[in-house]
Amino acid sequence: MQDIPGPAVYRISYYLRQLESLQQSAHETVSSKQLGKALGFTDAQVRKDLTYFGQFGHPGVGYRVDELIHRLKKILGTDRVWPVILIGAGNLGRALMSYKGFLRKGFQLAAVFDADPAKIGRRFGELEIQSMEKLSDCVTATQVRMAIVAVTPDAAQGVVNMLAQAGIRGVLNFSPTNLNVPPNVFVQSVDLALQLEQLSFRMSIEGNAQAAEGGK
Amino acid sequence: MQDIPGPAVYRISYYLRQLESLQQSAHETVSSKQLGKALGFTDAQVRKDLTYFGQFGHPGVGYRVDELIHRLKKILGTDRVWPVILIGAGNLGRALMSYKGFLRKGFQLAAVFDADPAKIGRRFGELEIQSMEKLSDCVTATQVRMAIVAVTPDAAQGVVNMLAQAGIRGVLNFSPTNLNVPPNVFVQSVDLALQLEQLSFRMSIEGNAQAAEGGK
Repeated sequence: MQDIPGPAVYRISYYLRQLESLQQSAHETVSSKQLGKALGFTDAQVRKDLTYFGQFGHPGVGYRVDELIHRLKKILGTDRVWPVILIGAGNLGRALMSYKGFLRKGFQLAAVFDADPAKIGRRFGELEIQSMEKLSDCVTATQVRMAIVAVTPDAAQGVVNMLAQAGIRGVLNFSPTNLNVPPNVFVQSVDLALQLEQLSFRMSIEGNAQAAEGGK
Repeated sequence: MQDIPGPAVYRISYYLRQLESLQQSAHETVSSKQLGKALGFTDAQVRKDLTYFGQFGHPGVGYRVDELIHRLKKILGTDRVWPVILIGAGNLGRALMSYKGFLRKGFQLAAVFDADPAKIGRRFGELEIQSMEKLSDCVTATQVRMAIVAVTPDAAQGVVNMLAQAGIRGVLNFSPTNLNVPPNVFVQSVDLALQLEQLSFRMSIEGNAQAAEGGK
């Protein structure tokens, strides 16, 4: 499964959401064509993606919605609760944690750390912000393996080094910078400026440049 | 250019960052191999990606760093300043705007809107939060074409309908929901919960499940 391309894993997340929405509207089965249609994928794409992970369809029936949800959650690791720690209790960290939908029921915030002495000891939701010196002991004691990094770009590499050293194996990184990590640590980067660039690319090629140049 | 696959455009963004970092360290030329190496791409991949957009290399020299930066910025549309509007002046909206690196010099916040009467008229950086009723006139007057949507999932579709109607052509969406838009509107979705799922997938398959289950 290590060889599964990243985009296929994204599609599994999308299929899961689509299936959950079908479940809410009391659908019991779905075809690969129906599942793909709402997401703009071909039925062949849907079947190929699911084939990476096993055999899910039933001849003459398609996919059973409940069953496929159960199995995709297992594949995505969201059939259990993952504790996560947050590094960086600034605006972005606070916004992420308070944003509905970000920490869904599969993830639970276990601890919050910040390097700023002025923040340490203050409340962060139900938790208390801890100093970076406490990080290693906390990870050892709680066996947390995932961290969300919402620090400034210049601090990010140092933080990730500490996390890897402490035993963290997965990092969701919000700093717009390349991070070097040992091979046993997985980094998922959310580069927000890069998302805006994708948008400006699409708009440039669609000839809206003139209109935009007339803007403020 | 409309047919260029999304992931190739992401890679253009990554190449640009790598080139900017080379420029800072006074490199004048770079080979496709060097450019790819730091990002984990093969030289063939780099050459193929760049070929989508034209001919950039010089025989025996490789790529000229300054020239390639200039041309990639033009391709990404970041050689000009794009005005953007923000819908949703809550925690996430504030965090995004104050987060270093999000609005780089290619983007400028032109106006902020919120549906909450308690927020309207309050300051948001150098701007004043406006009511949604002002949206259409503002877009017409300023000819802004890009919007960032940081509202709750249940409000997102209504907001996007208003934006499309007003003349917005590109949306960066932070609501964890599927949005239906006319074909002339491009939506770039940043689904933060989905990013966490990618992480839990990688950690599940790497057999860290046991360790995590021992966690808090």
